[in-house]
Amino acid sequence: MKTSLILLTVLFIFFTVTVFAADNEISPAPNGIEIPKSYKNWQIIAPSHRTDNNTIRVILGNSIAIRAARGKSINPWPEGTILAKIVWKDITHEKWPAAQLPGKFVHAEFMIKDSGKYASTGGWGFARWKGLDQKPYGKDAGFANECFNCHKPVMDNDYVFTHPADMP
Amino acid sequence: MKTSLILLTVLFIFFTVTVFAADNEISPAPNGIEIPKSYKNWQIIAPSHRTDNNTIRVILGNSIAIRAARGKSINPWPEGTILAKIVWKDITHEKWPAAQLPGKFVHAEFMIKDSGKYASTGGWGFARWKGLDQKPYGKDAGFANECFNCHKPVMDNDYVFTHPADMP
Repeated sequence: MKTSLILLTVLFIFFTVTVFAADNEISPAPNGIEIPKSYKNWQIIAPSHRTDNNTIRVILGNSIAIRAARGKSINPWPEGTILAKIVWKDITHEKWPAAQLPGKFVHAEFMIKDSGKYASTGGWGFARWKGLDQKPYGKDAGFANECFNCHKPVMDNDYVFTHPADMP
Repeated sequence: MKTSLILLTVLFIFFTVTVFAADNEISPAPNGIEIPKSYKNWQIIAPSHRTDNNTIRVILGNSIAIRAARGKSINPWPEGTILAKIVWKDITHEKWPAAQLPGKFVHAEFMIKDSGKYASTGGWGFARWKGLDQKPYGKDAGFANECFNCHKPVMDNDYVFTHPADMP
């Protein structure tokens, strides 16, 4: 009885530590943003492809973003919106050479709408995690200016490049 | 009181008919397959882009497909799998010419795994609905052979072109 109790306690501690470690293994971005949970299960806003860096992408959104995208109420996007862009190097299909598919995973990047908190970068918090090991991008919190500067040409579109894809 | 009751009855019939009509406005494919409900809310398997017909796509899956894709157990895909391919003509981003985005919606097409029911077409039921008004593709049930013939080069991949994208 006593042995069982000790064994159970040890098992409990082991699982607690394991689960805790798993939850925290992805470091936050240098501006403190934590990687959004379960983003790869979010619904689709659009795909895209870039010929300048040979990448193919999907843009997903949290529930607030999806409601806004489908209701065409996205300029501005509502507070609480999170857009996730998942990016891969493109490769050619082995049996259909005109088809370009996702190859090596590059990174997942995010825009989080909070007009108060991120007023200095257009109301958006930016963050990116690189590679399958999800290393946060940027040496310090200043990395977000790099993101923001790149998004300035689409200022009139609430700093968002993505246009939600038309769907029935 | 009597007038109110008549008015309520008329309203009830009106709404019932309207909702019923909305539920049935998309015709089944000529082989009898009904368009899967809420497919645009499914989770992502991969994007793709085709340079031969200038289209950009996302491939989504029902819950059985997503479990199989993420567990890398897809040859064969399990019974009950449904793969949805949503296809748009590609356009160029107005502020980033090297970016290709979804333009006009072309169609949504489906592969439904039922090895018994669809034994003559590799265990897959094929169906496609064209345009935003979702008109079923094909003059008669024979259209599925056209789909199947196009998929024969990927017989060794359970007749599926899509490779699930690698994600952390």
